[in-house]
Amino acid sequence: MIVKTLKVVKIGGNIIDNEEELYGFLEQFSKINTPKILVHGGGKEATKLANKMGVEVKMTNGRRITDETTLDIATMVYAGKINKQIVAKLQRNNCNAIGFSGADGNTIVSEKRPVKDVDFGFVGDIVDVNPDVVKLLVNHNITPVFCALTHDKKGQLLNTNADTIASELAISLAKDFNVELYYCFEKKGVLQDANDDNSLIETINTLTYQDLIHKGVITDGMLPKLNNCFHAINNEVAKVCVGKTEMLFEINSKFTNIKK
Amino acid sequence: MIVKTLKVVKIGGNIIDNEEELYGFLEQFSKINTPKILVHGGGKEATKLANKMGVEVKMTNGRRITDETTLDIATMVYAGKINKQIVAKLQRNNCNAIGFSGADGNTIVSEKRPVKDVDFGFVGDIVDVNPDVVKLLVNHNITPVFCALTHDKKGQLLNTNADTIASELAISLAKDFNVELYYCFEKKGVLQDANDDNSLIETINTLTYQDLIHKGVITDGMLPKLNNCFHAINNEVAKVCVGKTEMLFEINSKFTNIKK
Repeated sequence: MIVKTLKVVKIGGNIIDNEEELYGFLEQFSKINTPKILVHGGGKEATKLANKMGVEVKMTNGRRITDETTLDIATMVYAGKINKQIVAKLQRNNCNAIGFSGADGNTIVSEKRPVKDVDFGFVGDIVDVNPDVVKLLVNHNITPVFCALTHDKKGQLLNTNADTIASELAISLAKDFNVELYYCFEKKGVLQDANDDNSLIETINTLTYQDLIHKGVITDGMLPKLNNCFHAINNEVAKVCVGKTEMLFEINSKFTNIKK
Repeated sequence: MIVKTLKVVKIGGNIIDNEEELYGFLEQFSKINTPKILVHGGGKEATKLANKMGVEVKMTNGRRITDETTLDIATMVYAGKINKQIVAKLQRNNCNAIGFSGADGNTIVSEKRPVKDVDFGFVGDIVDVNPDVVKLLVNHNITPVFCALTHDKKGQLLNTNADTIASELAISLAKDFNVELYYCFEKKGVLQDANDDNSLIETINTLTYQDLIHKGVITDGMLPKLNNCFHAINNEVAKVCVGKTEMLFEINSKFTNIKK
């Protein structure tokens, strides 16, 4: 049996927030001729809507708290506006897409994060992925587009990290496909010096990863992203890459390759 | 070959706007053991959000105009909040559902209503229905949940009447299923006297319909609804009913039956 390649592509705020960038990306993404899944974060749109509605963003120790209103806003912006605009643009490019939250098809089940020091509110940690509907669709040449929401199977939607959604989806499909996972963001990949695009680290493996953390090269937001990368590569995902979207489309582009 | 029954159920504002009513309905709807599709309108939530955002509702000759901001609000509320909350509640009831706009699966293609006397803005009249993805899903025991948005296949989402979405979907599936179409609203059905629930007209056919219009019994909002009913019954939909949700669940309930 030939195992088909399936690309899971996560895009972040730098693409979502720039209409021209987004539509250009979607045009190229549509041309990928293997089965594919798109996962998108939220960008600044949710904050803009909160401001318009006069809703305060609640923070505790620098961490955002998702109260009921914030969850509604996330649902409206991520699953509504951004997701459906992406689907409509993909359809224009003859890429037959369907928008998903984790509730759709019961695909991603999470549990509300337990309250320890901080009550993060309606934030979900993934406990189960059911890829059956996704498999059915990609095998019919349809592209699922996931936003960063999951559900607890008890009727509650929950805000969930888009990087984690991408890695868990990739892992859940790795039994049936040769899965490649691409984290697209504003930089060429993991950099030795965050301000120097020429300091790209082209390969990171489990050993060098520990070293880079130890040396303080990988910190802050890059730490959870790379944890998601290693979680995927250690669970049968065939290829995990971090970089600019060009890594998907340009043969000679450079990016960071995650190895076991 | 046995032709399966498929129920297309449209619910309106009277159910959407009342959480208890909605969740009670979804619990019962989940138990329907034939293939089924839910179509929902918007209710008052979009107006509430517009008010919170300080957005004015634009009207011309008593008709609502969908400008860009209003379309964004509709996309956020209908495809985001309402649709995903319905999907999450159906999942709780073990009904495997997937939320749809007409852009998802390229299912419902519309064209922006041409400007004559009034420019309605981003309102779409349906020109094509592609039920392939819907068929694939219902044949796998998955329930599509449609909100009142379509797309023009050129990247533009468009606001579209939910009653029309329900009838066009029903017609598009009538070749493959024994389709029953249910329009659920706040009344027992078409009434001789709009204020008297005891004046139910139990059957309307093409002939009596013309007579009821002529006599002024069917006017205003009921006219387009019944036009959708007759459009469906005249295009291979097996059964078309108008009434309260109880018509779906209670054997002896009374409602209006539309006949050729």
